[in-house]
Amino acid sequence: MWIQRDVELAPKPRGFHLVTGEVVDALMPQLGEVAVGIAHLFIRHTSASLTLNENASPDVRVDFETWFSDAVPDGWNEFSHTLEGADDMPAHVKASLLGPSLSLPVRDGSLALGTWQGVYLCEHRDRGGARSLVATVWGGGFAHEEPGHAPG
Amino acid sequence: MWIQRDVELAPKPRGFHLVTGEVVDALMPQLGEVAVGIAHLFIRHTSASLTLNENASPDVRVDFETWFSDAVPDGWNEFSHTLEGADDMPAHVKASLLGPSLSLPVRDGSLALGTWQGVYLCEHRDRGGARSLVATVWGGGFAHEEPGHAPG
Amino acid sequence: MWIQRDVELAPKPRGFHLVTGEVVDALMPQLGEVAVGIAHLFIRHTSASLTLNENASPDVRVDFETWFSDAVPDGWNEFSHTLEGADDMPAHVKASLLGPSLSLPVRDGSLALGTWQGVYLCEHRDRGGARSLVATVWGGGFAHEEPGHAPG
Repeated sequence: MWIQRDVELAPKPRGFHLVTGEVVDALMPQLGEVAVGIAHLFIRHTSASLTLNENASPDVRVDFETWFSDAVPDGWNEFSHTLEGADDMPAHVKASLLGPSLSLPVRDGSLALGTWQGVYLCEHRDRGGARSLVATVWGGGFAHEEPGHAPG
Repeated sequence: MWIQRDVELAPKPRGFHLVTGEVVDALMPQLGEVAVGIAHLFIRHTSASLTLNENASPDVRVDFETWFSDAVPDGWNEFSHTLEGADDMPAHVKASLLGPSLSLPVRDGSLALGTWQGVYLCEHRDRGGARSLVATVWGGGFAHEEPGHAPG
Repeated sequence: MWIQRDVELAPKPRGFHLVTGEVVDALMPQLGEVAVGIAHLFIRHTSASLTLNENASPDVRVDFETWFSDAVPDGWNEFSHTLEGADDMPAHVKASLLGPSLSLPVRDGSLALGTWQGVYLCEHRDRGGARSLVATVWGGGFAHEEPGHAPG
């Protein structure tokens, strides 16, 4: 069973944004029919990224922006690729540090995330605009195994 | 063919720990029946992570802890999310720098890792406790192709 | 449908190198038959890595080398694993920051990358030699869905 969808995320300000609900909604109702599988989320840009982190306190997302923009500062004077603005080259580096995709286990029709895990869209540009994802899910209808209950 | 297992890793001290054997054992004996496929390891936490690196010298793992804790220092005064301790917000950042999952090729019933590659559990908290993984393997019984021997 | 290939990349100088064409060529012509699927690229080394970033300006790749070698400097005096050279331990850290694999969506026989995305081989050693990848593609012949046109 394969599901593949284009998911468009509306423009968001620079920073880290919780988008778990938006992404899951885009995969329904078919995601609900996957007993065991993987959901793959892929961002088609080089100045924004995806990560998984704490889904509760908004302070965590603020601190992500603070740390990443300190580690890869806008307008760093060692960068040579500066024509597209002071936030462009840092955005490329941050995008590779965090990565363009997430692969998440699916179990019994849902993402098998931990209690505190949520999907972040990481917008590294000041004006990044809308962002395009490709969401792909594959899996089967086999019942998943519990530890110690492997099939014979 | 799908295998999906919960794997519980016993509490480990802060730092980087080689867990290849533990993870492979949890997937046996079914992993041995996968001729070509992928093994996906996923950690259900936001303050610990998984990475692949050198499996020989323990010094490498010590140096990982040194570098990451220098890059994202405990109690950094720019962090606002401090209620859960000086090691909490750094743990979240490190977890996203390294990532929550690994996707590893499977060939002829084994992980097709390089000679020096091993799976690290990266424990970023001082007292992180036990850590839960979801390990998922999918694949088929097709013989894999050697370079230059693509089927006609 | 499964394709799994060993791909050998010729030795490259330290730095970031665009290898999209080489990798796609190694998967042809079978990749062209995958209607919907995933291509997984995996590097079997711990001192080189793979990432996805801007495929146009060579300056971006130069700036990647500059930033990463500033963040993880050769011969950093806090490293203890120094026997294999001043560039060895930094190479391990960079390899984990960027990661050993890429999972890319496949649609209609091609990688469904964004316009500006290309695959980088990240060579972190001064003399890393040839690098081995395992490229795995899996998928099906189902027509992919457009947003809003989910099958009934």
